Amino acid sequence: MKITIAGAGAMGSRFGLMLHNAGHEVVLVDGWKDHVEAIQKEGLKANFNGEEVIVKLPALLQSEVTESATSDLIILFTKAMQLEKMLNDLKPVIHEKTKVLCLLNGIGHEEVIEQFVPKENIFIGNTMWTAGMEGPGRVKLFGSGTVALKNLVDTDDAKKGALEIVEVLNSAGLNANYSENILYAIYKKACVNGTMNGLCTILLSNMYEFGSTTDAHMIVENIVKEFAEVAKNENIEINVSEIVEYIESNCYNCKTIGLHYPSMYQDLNKNNRLTEIDYINGAVVRKGEKYGVPTPYCAFLTALVHCKEQILGAK
Amino acid sequence: MKITIAGAGAMGSRFGLMLHNAGHEVVLVDGWKDHVEAIQKEGLKANFNGEEVIVKLPALLQSEVTESATSDLIILFTKAMQLEKMLNDLKPVIHEKTKVLCLLNGIGHEEVIEQFVPKENIFIGNTMWTAGMEGPGRVKLFGSGTVALKNLVDTDDAKKGALEIVEVLNSAGLNANYSENILYAIYKKACVNGTMNGLCTILLSNMYEFGSTTDAHMIVENIVKEFAEVAKNENIEINVSEIVEYIESNCYNCKTIGLHYPSMYQDLNKNNRLTEIDYINGAVVRKGEKYGVPTPYCAFLTALVHCKEQILGAK
Repeated sequence: MKITIAGAGAMGSRFGLMLHNAGHEVVLVDGWKDHVEAIQKEGLKANFNGEEVIVKLPALLQSEVTESATSDLIILFTKAMQLEKMLNDLKPVIHEKTKVLCLLNGIGHEEVIEQFVPKENIFIGNTMWTAGMEGPGRVKLFGSGTVALKNLVDTDDAKKGALEIVEVLNSAGLNANYSENILYAIYKKACVNGTMNGLCTILLSNMYEFGSTTDAHMIVENIVKEFAEVAKNENIEINVSEIVEYIESNCYNCKTIGLHYPSMYQDLNKNNRLTEIDYINGAVVRKGEKYGVPTPYCAFLTALVHCKEQILGAK
Repeated sequence: MKITIAGAGAMGSRFGLMLHNAGHEVVLVDGWKDHVEAIQKEGLKANFNGEEVIVKLPALLQSEVTESATSDLIILFTKAMQLEKMLNDLKPVIHEKTKVLCLLNGIGHEEVIEQFVPKENIFIGNTMWTAGMEGPGRVKLFGSGTVALKNLVDTDDAKKGALEIVEVLNSAGLNANYSENILYAIYKKACVNGTMNGLCTILLSNMYEFGSTTDAHMIVENIVKEFAEVAKNENIEINVSEIVEYIESNCYNCKTIGLHYPSMYQDLNKNNRLTEIDYINGAVVRKGEKYGVPTPYCAFLTALVHCKEQILGAK
């Protein structure tokens, strides 16, 4: 199968490498010039569970994609804010049967993807695999993981397409499953990110510190309620108190992950980078407008993070 | 007239000194022991428009107030969070005709005062006088100012009481006026504080920096809308776009006050003190609950400031 990895960072490189090794025609596409050139010159170098490997994989700068790289399956691994530009650059390789699997964090990406691909060809999933970037052309791939995915529209053909993608991924040992509940899982993860990420970023705190405040419960509950109301309009039932309890018993625990500063905190406060808030709480606001659901907590939090990005001059 | 200054900080000392000089029987009451003892031993020392003055004024620690200090007029100048305790300590001096004039910043103080004094005896106002604390027993009083006030309930007797207070204040040169619009003025000031204070405190920015962000307008508009909805239930008409424009053209101007960090920012981020958020945005939330008006922006901002107070261990 002709597979395009759109966004060949750490995780994209993992999928590309494993699918290539399984015999598929993989092309890596990315916007980071040094990384693409390193792979073109010397191949993709990986520390693969302790073993040094070099894989000669075709890599393309996304601005240089042409029709010759036509694709049966595009796996999306970009940062959320790079998604639209990537799909625009991939237009030459998208034909009417090209399937697109979105494994990005956050929610609402289908609204972007739908502008480039018919809904029937869009598949949504998430992954528990991990991967680390070590420099241009070089990644570190340890441990094991899984992929769960589902077709976006509920037709027999679309489901058949999802099962085909599962098969392809499993041919490469990626432990994929078709999952009816994947949208629930994606929303649940988005609830965690939609509370911990923005709040700790604004309050300059770790999750334990935030969770120790008297007002944490009220804030988290109100945000999760908005996610749930929006999800209801997509036929996804979110049990608010269950999710709030999940967050409180996991994220605030200072013996496990409570002392961790969420990725958004690191992006903005440490690395002065723009955040993905528009694809977490901001997506809930857009969906809320579409469905007529008020989302003041998500709107205010999104706006506060925007303010902070601008005050700090993040890029 | 027997006048109790409840909260004898900089501004209370100014009013006490000027009313004393005009021949009224003034007693200063405060909770700061060093300050009260300094006044008891050496009198209140003031740099009064450049002239050094010492005034022998009775001063009492609020915990030591007894019936012997019975009061015709109590002027409230405490910090908002100290108001209830002060009124509790002043119970011995309050008789059925004691008038109470509230000159605190923020809104909703009448809800506390009503627990101690009949509504007919409560008067609300604000002041443009300034004053600075220089140490225990010592203040700096420069420039001129005004006072505007009004009775809380609209009866003839209450209005008569308000006019009497105006006369007393004017006997001391305090430039007082009876003002039908005082509640509008108080709400307008609260809108400024209810946006700039909390937002700059949370975003660690000055007003110009905040005002330069693309999301500032939306946030400020939503907060002011909540103030306006609540005020409407008290028969006060607030023109949202007029107030938003007032804030935007005044507070964001880097050539005038835009580079200023609001007092709440200084209280919390510089001096690690608890803020007055409960008596600005928090008061709107309580009033909103009472009137059935949703106030998510004020509630979220109040909660975020609470979180920050607790994370920083403010006292």
